[in-house]
Amino acid sequence: MRRTGDRVVALLTDFGTRDWYVAALKGVILARAPHARLVDVTHEVPPQDVLAGAFTLAAAAPWFPRGTIFVAVVDPGVGTNRALLAVQAHGRYFLGPDNGLLALSLEAMPPRTVVRLTNPRYWLRSVSHTFHGRDILAPVAAYLARGGSLHRLGSTGHRINPLTLPLVQRRARGIVGAIVHIDAFGNLITNLRADQWLPAHRRQPVRLRYRRHLAPVVSSYASGRLGQLIAVAGSLGFIELAIRDGSAARVLGACRGESIRLNT
Amino acid sequence: MRRTGDRVVALLTDFGTRDWYVAALKGVILARAPHARLVDVTHEVPPQDVLAGAFTLAAAAPWFPRGTIFVAVVDPGVGTNRALLAVQAHGRYFLGPDNGLLALSLEAMPPRTVVRLTNPRYWLRSVSHTFHGRDILAPVAAYLARGGSLHRLGSTGHRINPLTLPLVQRRARGIVGAIVHIDAFGNLITNLRADQWLPAHRRQPVRLRYRRHLAPVVSSYASGRLGQLIAVAGSLGFIELAIRDGSAARVLGACRGESIRLNT
Amino acid sequence: MRRTGDRVVALLTDFGTRDWYVAALKGVILARAPHARLVDVTHEVPPQDVLAGAFTLAAAAPWFPRGTIFVAVVDPGVGTNRALLAVQAHGRYFLGPDNGLLALSLEAMPPRTVVRLTNPRYWLRSVSHTFHGRDILAPVAAYLARGGSLHRLGSTGHRINPLTLPLVQRRARGIVGAIVHIDAFGNLITNLRADQWLPAHRRQPVRLRYRRHLAPVVSSYASGRLGQLIAVAGSLGFIELAIRDGSAARVLGACRGESIRLNT
Repeated sequence: MRRTGDRVVALLTDFGTRDWYVAALKGVILARAPHARLVDVTHEVPPQDVLAGAFTLAAAAPWFPRGTIFVAVVDPGVGTNRALLAVQAHGRYFLGPDNGLLALSLEAMPPRTVVRLTNPRYWLRSVSHTFHGRDILAPVAAYLARGGSLHRLGSTGHRINPLTLPLVQRRARGIVGAIVHIDAFGNLITNLRADQWLPAHRRQPVRLRYRRHLAPVVSSYASGRLGQLIAVAGSLGFIELAIRDGSAARVLGACRGESIRLNT
Repeated sequence: MRRTGDRVVALLTDFGTRDWYVAALKGVILARAPHARLVDVTHEVPPQDVLAGAFTLAAAAPWFPRGTIFVAVVDPGVGTNRALLAVQAHGRYFLGPDNGLLALSLEAMPPRTVVRLTNPRYWLRSVSHTFHGRDILAPVAAYLARGGSLHRLGSTGHRINPLTLPLVQRRARGIVGAIVHIDAFGNLITNLRADQWLPAHRRQPVRLRYRRHLAPVVSSYASGRLGQLIAVAGSLGFIELAIRDGSAARVLGACRGESIRLNT
Repeated sequence: MRRTGDRVVALLTDFGTRDWYVAALKGVILARAPHARLVDVTHEVPPQDVLAGAFTLAAAAPWFPRGTIFVAVVDPGVGTNRALLAVQAHGRYFLGPDNGLLALSLEAMPPRTVVRLTNPRYWLRSVSHTFHGRDILAPVAAYLARGGSLHRLGSTGHRINPLTLPLVQRRARGIVGAIVHIDAFGNLITNLRADQWLPAHRRQPVRLRYRRHLAPVVSSYASGRLGQLIAVAGSLGFIELAIRDGSAARVLGACRGESIRLNT
């Protein structure tokens, strides 16, 4: 078993790794919770892109052990009166601004406790206007890593702001969804859940239409011919468009938000 | 309390993370100090850019706990007779070449002991001409992480080479400084300390002039209108130029070294 | 001594760090081996570039302590019937696909035991077609980190697929090799081993020819004049082409695979 104080603290930000920002977060956490185990989810969320951050956090979080403390900072509203939250869900903790960044994760893991961070006793003594990740979230994460109580951090009862993904629509000519994320391999991740939209009993071949391309739904990335656009049930549970041994995003010049249609 | 051997070793280099260099540093440290806690400050200092490295290290270092061992490698002079140093300051250790890389950190944290690394007993047995970070600094860091004594590492009394930031000048039409760093958000960090140049009692509005732009000094990044150039006291204590929800560096094509002027 | 469970798990992938893939690997490992010490070798192997991955892993591995578990994922064949391996060599463990990725490392460290991973008892319960790093290699790494036995993981006796580097050829006009890797500094690493091709007793000056350039073999990166192309015995043991304080790759537009010739 993991001892208290030894907890995993997993960080997701849009800070990049070129600068000293991530290091400051880590320094503050280690100064107050010397045995915390720091893990980077990513620091390359596109600057201020809350949707991309929410998607990446939701994809990563289930794989981490119970007790993990996620610190998520994509926070264009820093310095305004947006709330900062600490949420307990499925034995994990999620810290971040209430701007939708945590929302996708908490759809999959319904929260047990939601606390709005209002008690400055657990923050750095001096809080800047520009860097609440370091000044508020990092010391709060350290406090939780040392076994601190969520309830001391502020007030409960806050309602989390939702993040709305593009809706999936049922149309006469098929199911219409959208590209919601483009991953590092150039795969195009849609908002169509494979288990929902690709029932196993279906007989006729299933295809995904993207612009003028028709992509057969196959069982693995390696199933397609070289250069062929295919659709697969990705490891996250969503249907993805991919090109074998290539980048679908680059070949097609695809963009997030473009619509796709399943079966015609 | 952190046990000896369990110390944080924080790394800053210009190696990038694409290659095996950082891994070699970490491997050497972990082979000799298995319980060291490795943290990356950054490995994306622009190649051989000692000023950028010095700035980033100085910004990050104060947030780390006492006992932290910083290993800094931006070392265009590797293989020449420049000195390698181990410096104790404010309970922290700084290891790196004596080329100015440590100087900004040590301005803020005056050193207690400065040792020039001359004792090969604490180095790898075979020292290359090209990679002193791995061959000298990493084993020395491991030695310190295990509670070793600074004084065994070499000779004291070395005078640290300074790094001169562009001077701030008082002129008839205002205070003239310069952009010394551009951060990952595209904010332009100047050499003007906010506490020195933005006294709280001042009545008339304060503005920063950059080229033909006049930026009001405001209290947070979110205070400006969208697209407006503003000046804020950044989290590091310096005045920064920023554009709300945008990159000042990209919008303005700004470069390090450009001059700015406070109040006209 | 490092306790069982406390082992270093070093990761090398082509996933990049923008996305959630690396985090998923780490989450799975930490959920099953809470005290594993995770280290990134790199996640920036060019997508599906097995040669670059093999080179980087081989360069990094010797610096890590005995007991280290390397998890290497550059796996264009995921979802096909290529083998996944766990190899014990020089007290270290190497996990990865049998596509040449591990081969250079195991040339330098001849394997003691080679196991083909066939026992699903040590994998995640549900294995995707697309992400065997997370579903098979990560839980196997966690099992080994906790002191598990290699022999339970599958069948021994598998013959590892080799990775063939371009051959070095002895010609009338000199030794002909090739650029096999370009590092983050823009140095051009060749397949010529310095100890083999640069005997110390040689009297006449040794030079490396690259296109129309003649590079003297010198003892350190700092030996050349500014802008001069030089050849040095790099820290890895291979002869490298470099430009002092510059990027040989960028200045020369060099590509991997180009031939070079030693002595004319």
